[in-house]
Amino acid sequence: MEPQQRIQMTLTKTKKQKPNFAQLEFGRTFTDHMFVMDYSEDKGWHDPRIVPYEPITLDPAAIIFHYGQTVFEGLKAYITKDHEVHLFRPDKNMQRLNRSNERLCMPQIDEDLALEALKQLIALERDWIPTEKGTSLYIRPFVISTEPYLGVAPSTQYRFFIILSPVGAYYKEGINPVKILVENEYVRAVAGGTGTAKTAGNYAASLKAQEVAEEKGYSQVLWLDGLEKKYIEEVGSMNIFFKMNGEVVTPALNGSILEGVTRDSIIQLLKYWEIPVVERKLGIEEVYEAYKSGQLEEVFGTGTAAVISPVGELRWQDKKMIINDGQTGKLSQKLYDTLTGIQYGTEPDPFGWIVKVK
Amino acid sequence: MEPQQRIQMTLTKTKKQKPNFAQLEFGRTFTDHMFVMDYSEDKGWHDPRIVPYEPITLDPAAIIFHYGQTVFEGLKAYITKDHEVHLFRPDKNMQRLNRSNERLCMPQIDEDLALEALKQLIALERDWIPTEKGTSLYIRPFVISTEPYLGVAPSTQYRFFIILSPVGAYYKEGINPVKILVENEYVRAVAGGTGTAKTAGNYAASLKAQEVAEEKGYSQVLWLDGLEKKYIEEVGSMNIFFKMNGEVVTPALNGSILEGVTRDSIIQLLKYWEIPVVERKLGIEEVYEAYKSGQLEEVFGTGTAAVISPVGELRWQDKKMIINDGQTGKLSQKLYDTLTGIQYGTEPDPFGWIVKVK
Repeated sequence: MEPQQRIQMTLTKTKKQKPNFAQLEFGRTFTDHMFVMDYSEDKGWHDPRIVPYEPITLDPAAIIFHYGQTVFEGLKAYITKDHEVHLFRPDKNMQRLNRSNERLCMPQIDEDLALEALKQLIALERDWIPTEKGTSLYIRPFVISTEPYLGVAPSTQYRFFIILSPVGAYYKEGINPVKILVENEYVRAVAGGTGTAKTAGNYAASLKAQEVAEEKGYSQVLWLDGLEKKYIEEVGSMNIFFKMNGEVVTPALNGSILEGVTRDSIIQLLKYWEIPVVERKLGIEEVYEAYKSGQLEEVFGTGTAAVISPVGELRWQDKKMIINDGQTGKLSQKLYDTLTGIQYGTEPDPFGWIVKVK
Repeated sequence: MEPQQRIQMTLTKTKKQKPNFAQLEFGRTFTDHMFVMDYSEDKGWHDPRIVPYEPITLDPAAIIFHYGQTVFEGLKAYITKDHEVHLFRPDKNMQRLNRSNERLCMPQIDEDLALEALKQLIALERDWIPTEKGTSLYIRPFVISTEPYLGVAPSTQYRFFIILSPVGAYYKEGINPVKILVENEYVRAVAGGTGTAKTAGNYAASLKAQEVAEEKGYSQVLWLDGLEKKYIEEVGSMNIFFKMNGEVVTPALNGSILEGVTRDSIIQLLKYWEIPVVERKLGIEEVYEAYKSGQLEEVFGTGTAAVISPVGELRWQDKKMIINDGQTGKLSQKLYDTLTGIQYGTEPDPFGWIVKVK
């Protein structure tokens, strides 16, 4: 049986009013429908279905509420000027979802079925994809543990959801450098922990440092390694790149860093352009030395939400680094223009990254 | 207004059939009612109420499902031979709940109100407290983030619950030593992380190591520090004590270990008995050296569920330590008898630990 035949569809009787697509806030508005699929030990994953977007009802003892056994993904759908719907490397997200499932002792999902479900849901909700420049439809697949049981053990029941949220342009007036605080007290993740998985606890752990950074006037934190607090890991919930000493450096995947899809795409683009790029262990001290000697040219975060987020200021303890005069660097801008160009279909896609939704 | 006047009560119309109290499994059966209270930014905590135990209904975008912003507690109510209902140091749990709230950027709860709510709920559910030896009513207070928002930020809405579950004796035929595997790959928590908070992500992170240990025939893992994998932290979800070289040693509260209520009670009891007890950094190598020289007398975990969990075998890489011939040690047994005696009212309570429910 083909996956597309297996997904049941129940349409909503009362469509929501669409929001003003020119004034969308991230992650607050959701479409009319969602995809749902259940897992039990005897049936495996079953009953894949598209249903009206509606509340989830769970026993108060459901494992998700107590022990956080859950994973998620984030990607986007884009409308091109030719009115096509583009997804960007969705297979990478589904692969990572399953790697996260493995780390959290959760059952593997059929990636083809998940992708087919995603396509059918987006085709149904096409009118919800905003068309203004820089806007998109944010896609949130997630799996929660639903068994009502207070023992600390993997759940025997799960539910997989895909929900959709139209989102505005991340940068309203071109990309905009941010101020970042290097975090010296709190730790996001450590090798042997869950840092490489896209799971709730990593994000809960990050809230406190983020709160402190905001109080000090910084928009995000730069995470250092949890062992020595010397080596650079991630920025906020993005990966990070440094253009310094004639090459582009990003921390190697060391067992505590999330393997970003945008990160991988940036590395591939840089190699395609024959710009030296290296994944390695990178100390904050080394970055500061490069800054002092005038060799730190650009710093930028990479992630699905912002694509490229240039860093204009990096504060490490009492040391303040102003990068590229606080302006977006040429490479950051070129990467942003090229990646978003591929996503919106205005640039060629030599890597075969785009998946079209019919 | 006194707290007890403020809690609204709605009784169930259909009481559940009580389970067979002689055959209770941990954490699977729940009573007829629960306590609920809501939080919003404008009202603070409001609408405290006892209602029928019923499913929780939340938007699929609720923060709890995505970023795990949640905290919980665990304690027990006991029936004494004089038919009184005892709580054991419940104020300590409410204090820790608030410390966890602080770490997770969640609002503080009025500890007196929470304790009053707990007492009222237990008084109402008194028939659900099993009376067989070693049985009790497990109490699970927890707070979840309910705002529907996909941005990574503290929720502006929360719900606090207390649910109750009758539980059987942890040890059906006296306390029973367990086999423990020292974990060398996975990490539970690290200083700067969330290890000192009772929050979901710590437990999700522990599932994989537990799964691997069980496959190897061990019932729990002993966590080492996440930095050097040399120093002892916790065992499973319990604190751990070593009777060695003429004193009792437990790892100091170092910023990644949960501050157990049972742990604190054990330390106080040992001091009361004038048995040398010390909280300090403790290497697994040091434990092994003590074992080799015949100075490792007893090892036991401590927690609300088991009270005392003797360790009969400790495996560290290729080294196997058989402790006290695999039998429960005298001190372990005495601590268990004394603590459970205080809890069930058969032993005096010189510390004022017992809170009676009227």
